[in-house]
Parts: sequence; C-alpha cells; structure tokens
Amino acid sequence: MRNDRILLSHGSGGKLSYQLVQNIFVKAFQNEYLLPLNDQAIFNLPASRIAFTTDSYVIHPIFFPGGDIGKLSVCGTINDLAVGGADPLFLSASFIIEEGLLVEELKAVVDSMSLTANNAGVKIITGDTKVVERGKGDKLFINTCGIGIIHNNVNLSPSFIRPGDVIIVSGSVGDHGIAILAHRSDIRMEAPIESDCAALHRLVKDVISQSNGIRAMRDPTRGGLATTLNELAISSNLGMLINELNIPLKEEVKGACEILGFDPLYLANEGKLIAIVSEDSAKTVLETMKKNPLGRNASIIGTVIREPQGKVFLETSVGNKRILDMLSGEQLPRIC
Amino acid sequence: MRNDRILLSHGSGGKLSYQLVQNIFVKAFQNEYLLPLNDQAIFNLPASRIAFTTDSYVIHPIFFPGGDIGKLSVCGTINDLAVGGADPLFLSASFIIEEGLLVEELKAVVDSMSLTANNAGVKIITGDTKVVERGKGDKLFINTCGIGIIHNNVNLSPSFIRPGDVIIVSGSVGDHGIAILAHRSDIRMEAPIESDCAALHRLVKDVISQSNGIRAMRDPTRGGLATTLNELAISSNLGMLINELNIPLKEEVKGACEILGFDPLYLANEGKLIAIVSEDSAKTVLETMKKNPLGRNASIIGTVIREPQGKVFLETSVGNKRILDMLSGEQLPRIC
Repeated sequence: MRNDRILLSHGSGGKLSYQLVQNIFVKAFQNEYLLPLNDQAIFNLPASRIAFTTDSYVIHPIFFPGGDIGKLSVCGTINDLAVGGADPLFLSASFIIEEGLLVEELKAVVDSMSLTANNAGVKIITGDTKVVERGKGDKLFINTCGIGIIHNNVNLSPSFIRPGDVIIVSGSVGDHGIAILAHRSDIRMEAPIESDCAALHRLVKDVISQSNGIRAMRDPTRGGLATTLNELAISSNLGMLINELNIPLKEEVKGACEILGFDPLYLANEGKLIAIVSEDSAKTVLETMKKNPLGRNASIIGTVIREPQGKVFLETSVGNKRILDMLSGEQLPRIC
Repeated sequence: MRNDRILLSHGSGGKLSYQLVQNIFVKAFQNEYLLPLNDQAIFNLPASRIAFTTDSYVIHPIFFPGGDIGKLSVCGTINDLAVGGADPLFLSASFIIEEGLLVEELKAVVDSMSLTANNAGVKIITGDTKVVERGKGDKLFINTCGIGIIHNNVNLSPSFIRPGDVIIVSGSVGDHGIAILAHRSDIRMEAPIESDCAALHRLVKDVISQSNGIRAMRDPTRGGLATTLNELAISSNLGMLINELNIPLKEEVKGACEILGFDPLYLANEGKLIAIVSEDSAKTVLETMKKNPLGRNASIIGTVIREPQGKVFLETSVGNKRILDMLSGEQLPRIC
C-alpha cells in the first residue's frame, strides 16, 4: 500500500478500494469462496436447519488486553450461532472505517480476524468496506454476520425451560467489562485483567454431544449475566433463583468492581455461556464443561422456579434475597 | 417510547435496548423468524446453492429524493444477491446509531425497510443495535446481510464471458449519484432528480426465465458503470468496447453533470444492472427487460472483445475511442 492511512478514496469503489481489498482482505482471508470477489459468495449446503445472526462491533478502544475488535467480531458472531446449537460455517465481514485510520492498524485487526477464524474453523467469505470522513466515525466499526447449521438432534429454545431446571455458567463473570474499563481508564493493577474473548462453539459441541438435557443457552455479553438471565426468564415465562456465592468471579475483577463501583453481574462477557439444563443432566454438563479449558471454572449458579414469572432473584452472600433486574441505564458504553 | 432521542442506554443491552427492539424493530419487521428474539434466527432450507452477501450503508444524508438509508439498505443487498442469480429470502439488519438521533427518524427508516422488504417478498429475521457517542458516528449506519437460493439451472460468473458477447444496461445511469449530490448541495432544478433505488430481483428473474444466455450480471453502484465494467473486464480477462451514444442518460442528469463537472459513467446507480449475454440471446434479454418497468430504458451499450485484456474502451459521441478506466480518487463520498 502506498498510503499509510485510510483515505476517503479507499471507500470509493474505485482503484484504491480495489487495492485495499486485494492487499489487505483477500490476502488475510484467502479462501475459495471469497476469491471470485463477486457481490455475493456462493456455497452449497445439504437440506438443513440454518442459523443466521448479525452483530456490529463498535468497541472502544479497538485494541485491548486479551483481544481487539477483529477477534471480538469473529468470536462474538460465532458465539451467537453456537448458543443456538449451530455449527458455525461462514462469516461475512463489513468494515466502516474512519478516514485517517492507520493502514497498519487495519491490517492488524484483519490479521487477527483471520487468525481467529482459522483457529475456529470458520471462513470469512464475503465483505464490504466503507470509509466515512474524519469525525463521522471512530476509527473502525465492524459488522459480522454468521451462518451455521443446526444438526437434527439439536433443539434449543427458552420455551423448553422447565421449573427445576439447573442454571450453569461456564466461568467467571465480568472479565471483559473490567478489562476494557481498566484499559480505558489506565488503572494500574498488580495482575492486569484480560478480556475473556473466545469462540465457544467447541465448548457447546462438547456439551451437546454429552447430554440431550440442554434446554437453552445464551452468551451473557452486553448487560451481563443479570440481563441475560432476565431475558431467559421473560422468554420462558418462569422465574430464576441465583445463588451469589456460586457465581465464579475472579478476585481481581471483584476488587476492581469494588474500587470502581461496578456490579460484575452487569458487566459484559465475551467468552462465557449460560446453559439451562434439566436437573438430571446438570452433573454431566458441568463435568463436560470443566474438561474444556474454556469451561474450567463452570459452576451451577441457580435453579429455575415457577414463580414469580419473568423475574430473577439473587440470594446474596449474606443470605438476603433480592430481585436481580435487567440493566437500566448504561454502565459502560461501547463495550462490544 | 418515553424518549424522543436515542440515548447511549438504548445500546446497553439492558432495559432501554429491550424497549427499542420491541417498540421499533419487532413492530416493523414482525415475522415468525424474528419473534423468538434469540441471538440467531433459524430457518429450514432444502439442499441448495446459497448466496450470501453483506453491505454497510453510510449514505449521507439518510433521507434523499427517491429513498432513504433504510430502503437503500434493503434494495442494495437484495440486488447483490439478485445479480448472482439468487432468489433473495432473508436479510439481517444491524444499526449503528449516533446518540441523539431522533427516534422518529429511526422509526421512519425502519418503516421504510419494512415496506421495501415486504414489497420485495423478503424477510428481515435477525438484527442488532449499537449506539455510539455524539460525534463518533453520523446519525445512522446500517448493515444488511442477505441470504438467497440459486436455482439449479442458474450459473452466472464473469468467467463465462466470451468475446462477441453483448453488454446490456437496464436503464439510465447516474440518477442516484446526481440525486444525492443535488440534494446535498441544495441545487434547485426544474425537475428534481430522484434516486433510482429499487430492488432488481424480479427483473433478474424475468430475464433468467426467458434466456439461458446470460453470462454474468452486476449492479453498477459505487464507481458507476465505468468501474463495474472494468471489474468485469479484469475478472473475465477480456476487453470491452462501449458506445457512448447508446448509454441511457436522462437529460436532467446530463445537464447536472455538465454544470457540476461530474462524469455520469462514474456515478453510483442503485436500481440498474449490467448483463453480459451471448450474442444470440441479446435481443430476447433486451425485450424482456423492456417489459419490466425497471428495465424500460434498457439498452445494448457494447460488446466484449478479445483484446486488450482487462481494459474497457469507450467510443465517444464524437467518434473517438478512449480508455475508460476505473474510478480513481473519490468523486462523491458516502453515496451508499
């Protein structure tokens, strides 16, 4: 590339766009589906149930401890497919770049996407690039859409949740939120906290292959564990009772939350999942999770109750019971 | 909605996000795939060749004569599927909103998406919303991804293009570009020019059903007719000879281009397609196009030549021949 910064012309659809696509995107993502560079990628699928998802990533800053916007945009979309029980296959990648972004920063992000996708066994097969004027964006926004196949025996939905079901979380909560927050505010910690950003589809596959008692799964991103549990309670029209003492929480995250005044139950996670499972499969699911490095600290955190419908209760460490509501307001903008 | 402007909290994943999704998106797009509001939409497809495409829309301003960013985001993605010979089925919709956007503006855009999708017979089945701080975006960016099925007898690719093939454009060029430009600069015209923004999948279907001589199709958006022809010349490794006099051009677009110093061959179109067809099917394709209102002004504009490879020549109205290169630089940022 002749220019070291992205210019408006890189988004014109003309010569510089063509060079950008060839030199950055095609080079990093190279695969047979992308290569024709048509307006659409084409692939064959057998008759199947297909999962389709989209997410735009606007995280600030674009590089952070444990990841970057590129890794996040691949993992996040893989996870949205995985928690539906789908095998992720293909991703799209669409970039909205602010004029002036360093080409090497874009390259680093794109390389990170490529690495993450390769490790996850998914292909980025179609894309788009737009450039907006300085001050009309913020360095880089990325949208990824994902397509996956749901195998015949898999059927997950909050509507399958029943009273007595067990609620499992795959690991410690709040790591991503605190990592971003600490990085933004330049707080110095003894042990710097890294984002948990990771692709969860293999953990999901492990669990699904070992148990058919899984009712529903979700990844507690924006709004955190508390908000996601509320969504599940609303969708299933049941209640949930969570035991605070059983929620995995890293000491350093707990400490940072206390100092900074954040509640870890509302902080975003990018490499954790919540599974609601039948009582008799809880042990198997938990043990299976613990065998996978991404589920090592999995824990049973509560049970599904009949009433009150659509509400989540937290039994606190001091033995009180209080309603755990959805996030209201905004703790941390642009966390993902 | 209690608030008349979008707040950062609408992107938090918490209560306000939930209300925004329910009151604006679910209400407008309502369909059985979207309604479970899971992290992914699920649908069944028979064994098929699937087309998959993504585009982010950053057009400024978001409302313009003949359309708005919502209509554009649906038509543009439908068209990227259609020119691959695919029947568009499902779209995703992802919104990056700048804090402070009027809720009624968002609602107008979303309603326009819904109307356009309904008219086109496609469903918007999954979505995402992010909010960025004031000054870190520009009102509204939308990403749509599309999924379509390519039927068995359809096989389009620039690699099928042969010397002697005929180049057809489905109507007048430059309308979208001039409409946006005139609107931005507040130029007063006798007859205001409207964007040609339209979904082309039914025009494509008409043509495909009448002829099996279609080699490849493209919609000449950013970079215009000239850039798209260059891309086709490069992909097919052949040359093209275009006759300027045969390129449909509205008088008012021609006039505006002369006054403003723009070349209509480089201006974006959002409701036109280029078809490269075998010589013996040209007449059928042209006549079929002309029967559809969106192809009424279709015209044969040139032929494919063996050499020079990857180049496009323009026979001008005064009888000269010159190279018609890809767009270099940027005429009009944020045209789509």
